[in-house]
Amino acid sequence: MPEGRRMAVITWTTDFGTSDPYAGDMKGAALAVNEAIRFVDLTHDVAPGDVRGAAWILAKSFDRFPVGTCHAAIVDPGVGSERRGLAARAGGYFFVGPDNGILSAALAAAGDAEVREVSIRHVDAPRRGTTFDGRDVFAPAAARLVTGVPLHEFGPEVHDAIALPPFEPVRDGDGWSVEIARVDRFGNLVTVAGESFLRREWPDDWRSLEVDAGGRRVSGVRLAYADVAPGAPLLSIGGSGTLEVSVREGSAAGALGLRAGDRVRIVRPGPQRPG
Amino acid sequence: MPEGRRMAVITWTTDFGTSDPYAGDMKGAALAVNEAIRFVDLTHDVAPGDVRGAAWILAKSFDRFPVGTCHAAIVDPGVGSERRGLAARAGGYFFVGPDNGILSAALAAAGDAEVREVSIRHVDAPRRGTTFDGRDVFAPAAARLVTGVPLHEFGPEVHDAIALPPFEPVRDGDGWSVEIARVDRFGNLVTVAGESFLRREWPDDWRSLEVDAGGRRVSGVRLAYADVAPGAPLLSIGGSGTLEVSVREGSAAGALGLRAGDRVRIVRPGPQRPG
Amino acid sequence: MPEGRRMAVITWTTDFGTSDPYAGDMKGAALAVNEAIRFVDLTHDVAPGDVRGAAWILAKSFDRFPVGTCHAAIVDPGVGSERRGLAARAGGYFFVGPDNGILSAALAAAGDAEVREVSIRHVDAPRRGTTFDGRDVFAPAAARLVTGVPLHEFGPEVHDAIALPPFEPVRDGDGWSVEIARVDRFGNLVTVAGESFLRREWPDDWRSLEVDAGGRRVSGVRLAYADVAPGAPLLSIGGSGTLEVSVREGSAAGALGLRAGDRVRIVRPGPQRPG
Repeated sequence: MPEGRRMAVITWTTDFGTSDPYAGDMKGAALAVNEAIRFVDLTHDVAPGDVRGAAWILAKSFDRFPVGTCHAAIVDPGVGSERRGLAARAGGYFFVGPDNGILSAALAAAGDAEVREVSIRHVDAPRRGTTFDGRDVFAPAAARLVTGVPLHEFGPEVHDAIALPPFEPVRDGDGWSVEIARVDRFGNLVTVAGESFLRREWPDDWRSLEVDAGGRRVSGVRLAYADVAPGAPLLSIGGSGTLEVSVREGSAAGALGLRAGDRVRIVRPGPQRPG
Repeated sequence: MPEGRRMAVITWTTDFGTSDPYAGDMKGAALAVNEAIRFVDLTHDVAPGDVRGAAWILAKSFDRFPVGTCHAAIVDPGVGSERRGLAARAGGYFFVGPDNGILSAALAAAGDAEVREVSIRHVDAPRRGTTFDGRDVFAPAAARLVTGVPLHEFGPEVHDAIALPPFEPVRDGDGWSVEIARVDRFGNLVTVAGESFLRREWPDDWRSLEVDAGGRRVSGVRLAYADVAPGAPLLSIGGSGTLEVSVREGSAAGALGLRAGDRVRIVRPGPQRPG
Repeated sequence: MPEGRRMAVITWTTDFGTSDPYAGDMKGAALAVNEAIRFVDLTHDVAPGDVRGAAWILAKSFDRFPVGTCHAAIVDPGVGSERRGLAARAGGYFFVGPDNGILSAALAAAGDAEVREVSIRHVDAPRRGTTFDGRDVFAPAAARLVTGVPLHEFGPEVHDAIALPPFEPVRDGDGWSVEIARVDRFGNLVTVAGESFLRREWPDDWRSLEVDAGGRRVSGVRLAYADVAPGAPLLSIGGSGTLEVSVREGSAAGALGLRAGDRVRIVRPGPQRPG
């Protein structure tokens, strides 16, 4: 193994929670490869088994980090079965995780990905159980990647990795049907409609958009929650760079009865509506 | 930007929770400025919007850390509005956060603060949404401060930053009314009455204090929970260096029906009471 | 104090939770000793006061980390009383924590332990309260150990540290009674029966084990959750290297009505049963 790089960062996106030592065990396994690695938890609180939710988080956050970071994403109900493990490089970043689609949105966004198989025999690490590839395979794989082990030293190239349906608005009559990718801690409905999409579709008046959210009409993309009265719904471009439906000092999810996987509908902006 | 210091620590006090990737996104934005920075989470579980609770945590914890640490405190219901962002230096520490009082108790405790405005145009970082200054402004600002960018390169000095009411006991007849600043995980009632205050007011017999907590009298400042019977209430000097009301092997908050923002009353110590 | 080692890692296993700043305060106290130290949280979400649960986590995770790591385990209902604090070295690792058994299983597993007393007077750190030895004693002690302060500079050797009952299967008629050490986030019942124990007792047919779990018979040690139907119970060797009872895409704890401290029973493997 080449000499360790001094700057080496691994991020984690898992459904392991933080009550169990699983996240810590993975970090120990990575430090056992290279003691200089530092870690950032994107979150360990993905809903158990929610591969799509984890894929969204990874796709929206991976490029906040310095090039060379390895992102480990492990929501893995198929652990121990024949499902493959993946290690990849795309857009200057590394990625490891099971081949169940969890990496697919990030790899598509990063572009030009080289994807290879990774298993216990590529990482020279002890197998300690049959149901914890996060620690026994993916953590040491991530550690080797940020330490400078070339990706081609892992398994064969994979050209048929599982891909999830894309996070994109879908044409729906004269509007767009837009998936709610996440409901965050504040009850904000984080949709998949990016600001760039809105600007492309409605270059002149995207800020006057109107959205049907659970039967309620909400108009106008705001700059601040304080632009509406407490308790009122509003639209904004949230931290993910996508359209969010919020309620000032309240929960949009609660007020509108919507959750992750549900859809809102973008109707034509007000000024363009007939009548 | 000057060459990065090797030792650079940022702490975080937010209401972002850990289910969303927001805390991780801020760390990514800081690492994008300086890959050597390390992070300590004070907590991301401040109650949503509880600026005062965050201000207390920061004020009691900031000086546990090595001089030069930057403390980022972000509970920010006014994000996107005209509220200013602040960057400050006081007592050898750096601080960043919104101008809503969240920094005020720490700055008052540290003393001799230089406070400046900070906004997106001072940090040379990409704006990715309108409602996440934690990632887009405060994280890169904190990263620049611990990397050696002088504070005066940020915005103009601020002399009228918002200050919260101080965390202090208030004279109340022949006793003192004392705010409960926090209820911790164990149900301990953490009050604002510091040990130094108690020693100053009752130099000879502060250990025999008597407190009225939710109608219940509790006497004697103890050294250990084990000094009383299981289920019994007790007073101690807790981890914050202030008076706490606890119940051994139980929750004082539950047993006494009190919560953050409520008050207990210090009555004269037993030996001085008439009769 | 000797010059700090560049690689210095402290892990934490506590019941402090993450809503309070207690974990962060400990890290600040450690950084105040040596700014280069890095931290891994095994978990701060041990059930309040659950010394045995913390002892199990530590015993199963300590040796995932590089030699030289210091493991701090602090579940400490006796804080402030006469209970001793301990600092130890075993198997190349360091350990600190209260003398209540929390370290005992890890020290027994590591072998050949040197155990010494540690108190506020061994750490040259400020005392800031009477009920937070995690920050005031154990964090600076851990920091000094990973920085190279010799263990013999702490207090006198301790030869009678409190030891918990071992985590081991117990003979029970013609089977074995096996404690459930933990219930994890997914509802898996993590037992104390290690794979090595199973292989020793039933070298030829340990994979066809039969277990009575809450009155339900479960047979066959599986390699993957996917080896049974959704909703069905299964046995596997989990991440701790011990026998686990799980329910595919469900909670074994919920389905079988069992929790930490309860027991399951290993009966003779199927092929050996009479009839």
